Amino acid sequence: MLRYLTAGESHGQNLTAILEGIPSGLGLTREDIDNELKRRQVGYGRGGRMKIESDRIEILSGVRFGKTIGSPVTLLIRNRDWENWRERMSVEQVSGERPSETRPRPGHADLAGAVKYHHTDIRNVLERASARETAARVAVGAVAKKLLKEFRIDVISHVVRIGSIAVESGNLSFADIGEQAEGSPLRCADREAEARMIAAIDSALAQGDTLGGVCEIRVRGCPPGLGSYAHWDRKLDARLAFALVSIPAVKGVEIGLGFEAASLPGSQVHDEIGHNGETFTRLTNRAGGIEGGVSNGEDIVTSVAMKPIPTLGRPLRSVDVRTKDPFEAHKERADVCAVPAMGVIGEAVVAFEIAGALCEKFGGDSMNEMKRNFDGYMKQVREFSSS
Amino acid sequence: MLRYLTAGESHGQNLTAILEGIPSGLGLTREDIDNELKRRQVGYGRGGRMKIESDRIEILSGVRFGKTIGSPVTLLIRNRDWENWRERMSVEQVSGERPSETRPRPGHADLAGAVKYHHTDIRNVLERASARETAARVAVGAVAKKLLKEFRIDVISHVVRIGSIAVESGNLSFADIGEQAEGSPLRCADREAEARMIAAIDSALAQGDTLGGVCEIRVRGCPPGLGSYAHWDRKLDARLAFALVSIPAVKGVEIGLGFEAASLPGSQVHDEIGHNGETFTRLTNRAGGIEGGVSNGEDIVTSVAMKPIPTLGRPLRSVDVRTKDPFEAHKERADVCAVPAMGVIGEAVVAFEIAGALCEKFGGDSMNEMKRNFDGYMKQVREFSSS
Amino acid sequence: MLRYLTAGESHGQNLTAILEGIPSGLGLTREDIDNELKRRQVGYGRGGRMKIESDRIEILSGVRFGKTIGSPVTLLIRNRDWENWRERMSVEQVSGERPSETRPRPGHADLAGAVKYHHTDIRNVLERASARETAARVAVGAVAKKLLKEFRIDVISHVVRIGSIAVESGNLSFADIGEQAEGSPLRCADREAEARMIAAIDSALAQGDTLGGVCEIRVRGCPPGLGSYAHWDRKLDARLAFALVSIPAVKGVEIGLGFEAASLPGSQVHDEIGHNGETFTRLTNRAGGIEGGVSNGEDIVTSVAMKPIPTLGRPLRSVDVRTKDPFEAHKERADVCAVPAMGVIGEAVVAFEIAGALCEKFGGDSMNEMKRNFDGYMKQVREFSSS
Amino acid sequence: MLRYLTAGESHGQNLTAILEGIPSGLGLTREDIDNELKRRQVGYGRGGRMKIESDRIEILSGVRFGKTIGSPVTLLIRNRDWENWRERMSVEQVSGERPSETRPRPGHADLAGAVKYHHTDIRNVLERASARETAARVAVGAVAKKLLKEFRIDVISHVVRIGSIAVESGNLSFADIGEQAEGSPLRCADREAEARMIAAIDSALAQGDTLGGVCEIRVRGCPPGLGSYAHWDRKLDARLAFALVSIPAVKGVEIGLGFEAASLPGSQVHDEIGHNGETFTRLTNRAGGIEGGVSNGEDIVTSVAMKPIPTLGRPLRSVDVRTKDPFEAHKERADVCAVPAMGVIGEAVVAFEIAGALCEKFGGDSMNEMKRNFDGYMKQVREFSSS
Repeated sequence: MLRYLTAGESHGQNLTAILEGIPSGLGLTREDIDNELKRRQVGYGRGGRMKIESDRIEILSGVRFGKTIGSPVTLLIRNRDWENWRERMSVEQVSGERPSETRPRPGHADLAGAVKYHHTDIRNVLERASARETAARVAVGAVAKKLLKEFRIDVISHVVRIGSIAVESGNLSFADIGEQAEGSPLRCADREAEARMIAAIDSALAQGDTLGGVCEIRVRGCPPGLGSYAHWDRKLDARLAFALVSIPAVKGVEIGLGFEAASLPGSQVHDEIGHNGETFTRLTNRAGGIEGGVSNGEDIVTSVAMKPIPTLGRPLRSVDVRTKDPFEAHKERADVCAVPAMGVIGEAVVAFEIAGALCEKFGGDSMNEMKRNFDGYMKQVREFSSS
Repeated sequence: MLRYLTAGESHGQNLTAILEGIPSGLGLTREDIDNELKRRQVGYGRGGRMKIESDRIEILSGVRFGKTIGSPVTLLIRNRDWENWRERMSVEQVSGERPSETRPRPGHADLAGAVKYHHTDIRNVLERASARETAARVAVGAVAKKLLKEFRIDVISHVVRIGSIAVESGNLSFADIGEQAEGSPLRCADREAEARMIAAIDSALAQGDTLGGVCEIRVRGCPPGLGSYAHWDRKLDARLAFALVSIPAVKGVEIGLGFEAASLPGSQVHDEIGHNGETFTRLTNRAGGIEGGVSNGEDIVTSVAMKPIPTLGRPLRSVDVRTKDPFEAHKERADVCAVPAMGVIGEAVVAFEIAGALCEKFGGDSMNEMKRNFDGYMKQVREFSSS
Repeated sequence: MLRYLTAGESHGQNLTAILEGIPSGLGLTREDIDNELKRRQVGYGRGGRMKIESDRIEILSGVRFGKTIGSPVTLLIRNRDWENWRERMSVEQVSGERPSETRPRPGHADLAGAVKYHHTDIRNVLERASARETAARVAVGAVAKKLLKEFRIDVISHVVRIGSIAVESGNLSFADIGEQAEGSPLRCADREAEARMIAAIDSALAQGDTLGGVCEIRVRGCPPGLGSYAHWDRKLDARLAFALVSIPAVKGVEIGLGFEAASLPGSQVHDEIGHNGETFTRLTNRAGGIEGGVSNGEDIVTSVAMKPIPTLGRPLRSVDVRTKDPFEAHKERADVCAVPAMGVIGEAVVAFEIAGALCEKFGGDSMNEMKRNFDGYMKQVREFSSS
Repeated sequence: MLRYLTAGESHGQNLTAILEGIPSGLGLTREDIDNELKRRQVGYGRGGRMKIESDRIEILSGVRFGKTIGSPVTLLIRNRDWENWRERMSVEQVSGERPSETRPRPGHADLAGAVKYHHTDIRNVLERASARETAARVAVGAVAKKLLKEFRIDVISHVVRIGSIAVESGNLSFADIGEQAEGSPLRCADREAEARMIAAIDSALAQGDTLGGVCEIRVRGCPPGLGSYAHWDRKLDARLAFALVSIPAVKGVEIGLGFEAASLPGSQVHDEIGHNGETFTRLTNRAGGIEGGVSNGEDIVTSVAMKPIPTLGRPLRSVDVRTKDPFEAHKERADVCAVPAMGVIGEAVVAFEIAGALCEKFGGDSMNEMKRNFDGYMKQVREFSSS
């Protein structure tokens, strides 16, 4: 069973994750993780803090001589800005006046969180509710991705909508999508749409507004048979939805056709089954690679909707939790759109869920053992499928 | 911790669920559950089997003299058709020829499930992957609903789309939606749209086609503070997404504005915060009652997209798993649309997740204790919120 | 992941268990389970109810034509005495006076349970706290045992102490212990001690007293590598201790030498390692087959201490929960000793834990797949171990 | 739900734990934790490394201005000796020859762990299987203890046996046991026995041998009603057994009378119930504070048996995993007995389990809320119990 916990405040000393259950013998370097951390930090539409961050991983346990050894992996990311926050974020009691944050921002966890935990200083909420935490999840996802690569499973994402601008649903191959998104400042595989998205972001910035959008996350190479229909809480699509909606600001998720499947007649929704002489095929992939909660061997396709960043240049009305006086929440900032980053985070959480399902199905304590089990199953699948 | 397991094949002897963690002292009758089972079975667009079923619950444990006693609750629903299937679904080995189902239906778990579990008789898959299982989940949800009622928390659903026909997004109150949906054969609160939906269903039936749609599920009365931003796997919206996507045929889920939030600028998405002299208010509820993974006291609003029923009157191409010969999958049937039922199932799984979150936050082994804890917290919230 | 829930009151309609996670293709018959249920019910020292019970299993789901199909297995045991209790254990509200049990018995969960769940009728506690529930666990364990048998793993138990009478720690082989215990009315492998134990039971009965004792539970054929040292909650010995102490009336558990290991010097406790030319050997098995939380391939040996049955013929003082008046708790009965049954229950819970660890390590959704993975690992172990 | 993960190798950079689920508002300082870390490190019979360690905690998250804020708590302990191990424990690949540990020590996880994870360098096993990991668990337990203190629940331990020397079972009060153990170099509350234990340790050292022993761990102030009889995996005694047996080298655990209960007749085992006019009383506490898996308000008493340290001065036979050549495992060292430390670790894991059960029963996200719920329940208990 693969599992992890993350910890850390946005302006605390660092973020930490402990990842438990990775088999021994998986090659893992800092670069593997730093690459993903970097991918999370780029993207047109982000303001200044991203530069401050420039995250780098420290692997504190579970890896020796470049390979996992089967014990829990500790991942640590220092917050570069920590020195400036040392006092305001002090672990110890401090004497004297402590400035308290009493103004909840609309669209954030601030007010609901303060009520729940009985906080009068809202900083106690926002420090942890911040999307900063996703850096730790991306680090965990990077390990999962490395594991998946050993089984030739790839996870990619691309931006398909920013605000009102959407890409044309095209016929790009998996490889092309991945490559073109990687070369785009917006992580968008459609150059024409990208230009209009950039213009939309610039325009929103000028108006003190922000934009959300939609990313598509795809998995290629997943064997058929991950997840299960046998019990509701083992369905692979449900697990992906759980992971994706847990990303801050995500308000919707789709598998395959998603909501479009609700609008079309059945004859245009279900994927017919064929056979190419060697193996079963599906003539389309409207299901997004999962039927009955079980992967079917096609690409897994999910779409994820993110709301706009809640901290605007334009004022939003709110109320001080102490005085109950109204005030206007706003902030001069250059952060307009975090959708490209969300795609990278989405890859990470999807990679973790697929890796988890893989570990469950194939067991194994070393990569050798896990691969042997995987190979044996793939042979079984081929025999089942071949004429 | 509230938890449950379900079991049972579609044409087996019965469905069973064991629900563990319900406090003692909750009033519970068979009628409470039978009402929900019945609600699941009605709905324009369903064919013949619904009549065969006419599900009735048997409570086999955990309830005494009309009240829960703190021990696990066993819920059993007999499959009325069982006698006709006794042989084909025999638990024991039978001598002689056993007819084997070797033809996977597109859009079902049939093929992926057979590959996973190494079944050559696809009946071993379809019996459990069938939506019949949801009857057990509705029964569990009925108990959860009863628990929620003690805290004045209500869960309703209504159909907002069937195929290409959608309701106008209106200004109906929570109570009106619930009432009008309940009186509608399609569980639709908009009479005008309902008429067109019925026409669309009739037309699909005539063409041997099927239709999906969208339900909205709403929760009223949820206290602020369920779920948590503190760790990703405790977010209430993620848990709801998990539960909803685990319903068969669901391909998408939204919280609040959902995908629309990805298209609009931030200034039109976030809910401003006010104060009415007594308590904090939100001027809108675009977030759907959850911010940062935490309920904020507003109505929780989720939308769920269901694909059309995969068994059509029109043929879909498939391939026999044994012979690898192509065949055409189709069936004469009157089942065109199961969206109203999906709404009821959605209520059940949402009720269970909310009840679970409630039990975690308030603890308590008896209803008295749980209510005392709840009341204490609500007083704390009022004091936090009042000027 | 193997998991199960049980439900049912001692005098309710039945006991139920749902077992989730068993691979497809495991041969399973009612006899497999009935045999274990019967073994639980025999044993010198038990009184009358055992005859009333004569438990028989009904398999309601998850098995078809004599084999598991991968979906959850429902196991149901009817309480034969139910008709006599129908009114007192009514699920529905009943009109008129309901006799209430207000007298907590010492040594039972009665008082602590009533306080916890706020029950004034102690029957609401004792019905579920009764050891009757273990019948469901034995049924679950019977399925686990059947799974283990496919991997040539056997689980046996024998009584090694009744009250002050203990067996001589002898040199019986695993097979001899199993066989001789099976032929003994007390499940004791030492005929000489058995005779004295029977005398002790007879004497206790005459005095209105009861006796506890100790069982040893052994597992043969466990591969090395189940459990893990990598995280505390994955240790195999901890999981066995959890399962064994969860059996009613168990007050202690030992792995290998157990408490004796605390009295001896290290040079007499640790098992030296040898090699026989083909594989590693251990010259002794004082560790009881588990080192560092990991099975080492030797027999797993655990001892479990059970306190005497708390309902005595001789009076014990107690206090009525309603009136607070003192009374004397006692009962005319022939139940003096349940230790042999405890051994059978211990086998069941140990079998479940080993089967769970096996499923985790080897994965697999069908028996074929699981066995292939197991065989691959055993080959790897042999190659690791051979010169 | 309280949960935690630990990570870190014995000679790695540090140990880390992430603890999730602690309510906000709990006062917590480094001293709270350092005190416990120090208690773990003292004790007659330990050799040199204890001095090297002198563990100190760093709290990296979850605490602000001396109080928990509801987000996960990161606890980090640096390994002082790390600099000397930097190369041998390098996370990165190193060029050149790497010395490999191929000699498994009897009594350790070395061989079973190497087989499981397919390690040829046994250091990959022993670094994580080392008891060093318990420092992280003691840190977690220190937080749990701080939480318990807010509810006036105390956890203490004392050594009751070292090798063949046992304390007389005396009549010391809870407070006296705690105080006298705290003042003893062996954490033994019996001065006379202590002297003989010290002599035994000195003698073992002279012979190159080691000694195990038994600790008793007691909890005072636990409310009645923690744990549950309603489902086997919620029993408090089972959870304590799980946690205690997960401590390295523990081979047995007892609740209350433990194995002695198996030897005595029922009339000498069960605790009679009384009433003192105000509340129910128990005339004895042979059950060790738990009946039917539920705390009954009496002191919780458990005994834990630890085997001797497996690394002896005297040689034990073993076999090299690469060459299969026999060798003699031994080491010049002053570590003879780690039983006092085990008691402190036992306190930690018991404190964690009790704190977890408390959080489940009383819920609550802030200390205020949790205490209000606790107080309400205690009032209910008093009303239930008073005449």
